[in-house]
Amino acid sequence: MAVNYPEHVTLDEAWGLLRRAFGEYAGRFAAKMEISAALGHILTEDVTAARNVPHYAASAVDGYALSAGDTAGSSFATPVRIKKDKWQWMNTGAALPDWADSVLMVEDSSREEEEVVVYKSLTPSENVRPLGEDVMAGQIIAREGEEVSPALVSLFLCAGLEDVPVRRRARTLFIPTGDEMIPREEWLARETQRSGTAAESNSLFIAASFKKWGYRLDVAPILPDVPQILKEYVQKGVEDYDVVLVGAGSAKGERDHTIEVLSELGEVLFRGVRMKPGRPAIAAKIKGKPVICLPGFPMSTAVALWSLVYPLLRLLAGAGGETRELAREALAVKKIMPTKLLVQHSSPAGIEEWLKMKTALVGGTVYSWALTSGASVLWAIAESDGVALLPPSALECERGTEVDVWMTRDADLERRALFQGSDDPAVQLLVTPIRRRGADFVCRAVGSMGGLAALSRGECHVAAAHLLDEKTGGYNDLFIERFSKGQRWERLLLFYRTQGIIVARGNPKGIYRFRDLCTKDIVFSNRQPGAGTRVLFDCLLKQEGFCSERIKGYSQICTTHMEAANRVFAGAADAALGIKSAADALGLDFIPITEEPYELVILHEYLDHPGVAALLDSLNDAGWRGKVEEMGGYRWPK
Amino acid sequence: MAVNYPEHVTLDEAWGLLRRAFGEYAGRFAAKMEISAALGHILTEDVTAARNVPHYAASAVDGYALSAGDTAGSSFATPVRIKKDKWQWMNTGAALPDWADSVLMVEDSSREEEEVVVYKSLTPSENVRPLGEDVMAGQIIAREGEEVSPALVSLFLCAGLEDVPVRRRARTLFIPTGDEMIPREEWLARETQRSGTAAESNSLFIAASFKKWGYRLDVAPILPDVPQILKEYVQKGVEDYDVVLVGAGSAKGERDHTIEVLSELGEVLFRGVRMKPGRPAIAAKIKGKPVICLPGFPMSTAVALWSLVYPLLRLLAGAGGETRELAREALAVKKIMPTKLLVQHSSPAGIEEWLKMKTALVGGTVYSWALTSGASVLWAIAESDGVALLPPSALECERGTEVDVWMTRDADLERRALFQGSDDPAVQLLVTPIRRRGADFVCRAVGSMGGLAALSRGECHVAAAHLLDEKTGGYNDLFIERFSKGQRWERLLLFYRTQGIIVARGNPKGIYRFRDLCTKDIVFSNRQPGAGTRVLFDCLLKQEGFCSERIKGYSQICTTHMEAANRVFAGAADAALGIKSAADALGLDFIPITEEPYELVILHEYLDHPGVAALLDSLNDAGWRGKVEEMGGYRWPK
Repeated sequence: MAVNYPEHVTLDEAWGLLRRAFGEYAGRFAAKMEISAALGHILTEDVTAARNVPHYAASAVDGYALSAGDTAGSSFATPVRIKKDKWQWMNTGAALPDWADSVLMVEDSSREEEEVVVYKSLTPSENVRPLGEDVMAGQIIAREGEEVSPALVSLFLCAGLEDVPVRRRARTLFIPTGDEMIPREEWLARETQRSGTAAESNSLFIAASFKKWGYRLDVAPILPDVPQILKEYVQKGVEDYDVVLVGAGSAKGERDHTIEVLSELGEVLFRGVRMKPGRPAIAAKIKGKPVICLPGFPMSTAVALWSLVYPLLRLLAGAGGETRELAREALAVKKIMPTKLLVQHSSPAGIEEWLKMKTALVGGTVYSWALTSGASVLWAIAESDGVALLPPSALECERGTEVDVWMTRDADLERRALFQGSDDPAVQLLVTPIRRRGADFVCRAVGSMGGLAALSRGECHVAAAHLLDEKTGGYNDLFIERFSKGQRWERLLLFYRTQGIIVARGNPKGIYRFRDLCTKDIVFSNRQPGAGTRVLFDCLLKQEGFCSERIKGYSQICTTHMEAANRVFAGAADAALGIKSAADALGLDFIPITEEPYELVILHEYLDHPGVAALLDSLNDAGWRGKVEEMGGYRWPK
Repeated sequence: MAVNYPEHVTLDEAWGLLRRAFGEYAGRFAAKMEISAALGHILTEDVTAARNVPHYAASAVDGYALSAGDTAGSSFATPVRIKKDKWQWMNTGAALPDWADSVLMVEDSSREEEEVVVYKSLTPSENVRPLGEDVMAGQIIAREGEEVSPALVSLFLCAGLEDVPVRRRARTLFIPTGDEMIPREEWLARETQRSGTAAESNSLFIAASFKKWGYRLDVAPILPDVPQILKEYVQKGVEDYDVVLVGAGSAKGERDHTIEVLSELGEVLFRGVRMKPGRPAIAAKIKGKPVICLPGFPMSTAVALWSLVYPLLRLLAGAGGETRELAREALAVKKIMPTKLLVQHSSPAGIEEWLKMKTALVGGTVYSWALTSGASVLWAIAESDGVALLPPSALECERGTEVDVWMTRDADLERRALFQGSDDPAVQLLVTPIRRRGADFVCRAVGSMGGLAALSRGECHVAAAHLLDEKTGGYNDLFIERFSKGQRWERLLLFYRTQGIIVARGNPKGIYRFRDLCTKDIVFSNRQPGAGTRVLFDCLLKQEGFCSERIKGYSQICTTHMEAANRVFAGAADAALGIKSAADALGLDFIPITEEPYELVILHEYLDHPGVAALLDSLNDAGWRGKVEEMGGYRWPK
């Protein structure tokens, strides 16, 4: 089929195409709207007051209406007295009588029977709100292009206006599609789901985003992958709605029928945007109305929503602005923060890349790192402090590269401690007690060795290690000596942890000791090089005299205990080396092998850092200690 | 009556008292909430995933499931072929079969009958999304104290959660009071209202603010000033609602009955806050619930709402934060901008002052000025770019004093031209055409002389003048020469305006020529010194040989033509000197006196400024010219 639309356009080109295609369409949204309902809408014309506010000369204070001339020369030392028929009591807001020209504040007077004693001389108009002080009839009180604020709503009423000319908001339909998509109720009702299926969660994300933006979204039922059915829904959608969004299933190989349906029904404006994620987005104009096809992976949907759908909604609402600015508005970005990359990042050539960033301030430098770069990781969107949009020219970004992070969270970096080191679920549980102490704590699981290296480079406040020295059988000393290079490091033995073999419930493969891993036909799930648990595993292998090549799955790497345990839980591996709490969390069996000391290592000068201080204080938190004891597999040091 | 509560507390003290009184009450708002409804609410506990996401190892691409080992050594030059039973087609998201460990992207392959030709060698796990990649069962996916975002809603569903523990939002009742308050329907129905009355507009402002914040507000009927009735409503209010707000009428001298009612029903926490406006705010605890009395003037209500009510709502919702930070959140502040005061400002001693600020960037300096300092001016809230909160120590702020403005508007200062000079309604009408050209234009009516002085000090881009030289009868030359001091100023004759006497419709006082102002018993409404119209008036007086002391109202000053015309319209004055368009706007009679040239004056180096360029372009705008001609009293130069 001949393609008669632009493919793989840049974000700016996509935005330009939408703007050209629907700039005029936007005019159709002009409407008169009742003033309270108009809140948040954009005015299409200048608005003129119909009345003076206030509509009479009013007293601005509680006191006495007077003629200013009668108070000449008055002061606390030389008060003047005003006779009965020359003053009148005024409540604030009362109408000034014709004969008076000013109001004496009650605080500047006293009363002696029927006379008012004046301690201050007045000038004409003093303490009088003139007619029209706030707004004058005929005055422009709000202008075309401005958003109706709470103050304007209130002002419109005072100025005698019942309704104002605005652009109404577009009504949008979202059509989720995909044979593999499970509707919410069914997903929640059944704990175990078939492989190859996924929860249709994008409609919740989109509806929640629309709600935050103050827009209405209706959601169609999930359509099966049948072109004719999609066609009918899109046709009906553009009749009943202003904007139609089509959601691709997250797991669909033959996506082409969406483009075919859109081509048949109208004009495709572009197919594919040079960005990652979000690349497969499509826009079409059908019966004059916009139809956008959102790629299915959650982060792709999010990116297309922020960078294409929200700007389109704002275009229709009469708001201006450049793509990135509107995307920042969609994300409710609080500020743009210049940072340096903590970890190198490779960005693909020729496309813009959206990254979910986490940030920390260490030694005067604001570092940031990408949480994951995939399209599918919802958790990372929720966990991130913000978003970075790397330009097509970014390519190989070395550690230290300057990156602007669009902060979507009010992260108090001054009070946030950055932990890098050995993964431990008990350490993860410290975040909440630390936050309750008014500080913050971010954990990066980079393994024991990675943590010590980061600490020595000044890239974290706290590290943690459990590194076995195979020569001495001792822990950490050798490694700390090697990495600290004369820096003053404080060591704190947090607890002893039981390491062992995590196996499926009931131990179906009959694994009872370490050498069974090498001798039986089992699939192992390994940890990354530099992790303390990996060091332990390699030592144990050596002790047993086995070669790593004999271990099936030796190159299958997990970076946390929970990840390793989960592979066993799901049957992807038969065994993993890890800590008892990870096995317990998933109800797996556990064969203890050894107990190891787990040490926190802190750069001395950070002991007073608010985040580190809160961490140290939290170690005595009874709630936290109770939870750790409950997890099992930990022993407190004497 | 003995007062047993703190009076005139600072804002921080007020906030501390609220926090102490209701910190525990906040605990009562904990609730399990359906995940979509929970959007925007704050979690009261850490939330743990109930399932792995994804719940199976999935293909991340469209392609062929393989064993990575079978692709060893494969490249475009040396492709490997995989036989029929050693590969399986995968749509993105499909479940990886047990025997495969990786997926070959379709782009890296070709098909020859039943064989797949492989152009790339794979590593195990390549293009596979491992089980739990996004979230692992047992993992903490959101933490206590975090707000539920759209991404979290979606993640909660995927992780198998139906509801989450959050704090529900407080339900609030607003009780407006005041004999002088006119309900909305009645206010809009009748064009003319009694003196001493006002529209009850605060409920609209409060409801709109609540809506923006995502909170629910119910509004009671307007209560008359009868303590017993207020008492009944407050009693019922604290039974049915979580928070009760009592609105004082804007015009009430004897407010004491609110404090009496609150004292009788419960404990008054404080009365009066050391801030301006907003000083008369009161807080009480009745049956354990917060009752806040908001002062009646719109800006006072707004300030109390931002600084007391919103922080209280957030406290109950479980959010932390310091008063000013929460007030900024209430105001949806976009950024904090350092500025220098354009005009000196006197701030009262010992109290914090809230100012509504307008800003402009001239010659590299961001200037700001207060729109008005009163409590009653709604228009200024709507028109301002933001708010400044001056500390109690501010006192006399000279021109140039540094002031931080909390920007509530995205003002593009680089493209905004600042006009200072003679007031003219036709110039005011230029704002919209200039904005349509992508720039912005702010007018300060400071009179002809004030404008030239500002231009010479580098405090505006454009000035405008119509200054009569009484010696020569010419206009502007003398003054421009005096002020420009060797700077290069461009002059542009915008139009000729007809100046004359504005009198009531039907000219009841029989004013037909200038000398009637001096000889008849009339009240005049004057303009400020330095205004071109004032200069003209003083010249005419001199020509007629009259002394200003004989003019009743000579010291009653207005700063714009419309303001002067409005005083005549409202009967506060019999006559004013001004331009025809102002008289016409209000349907008043007009006696022409003279025609004067109105000139724009622009600093030469600003001719390329985007705002100035848009201004110059707008002067040819057919729409604008049409409106000016329609107004009447203007003549275009040849």
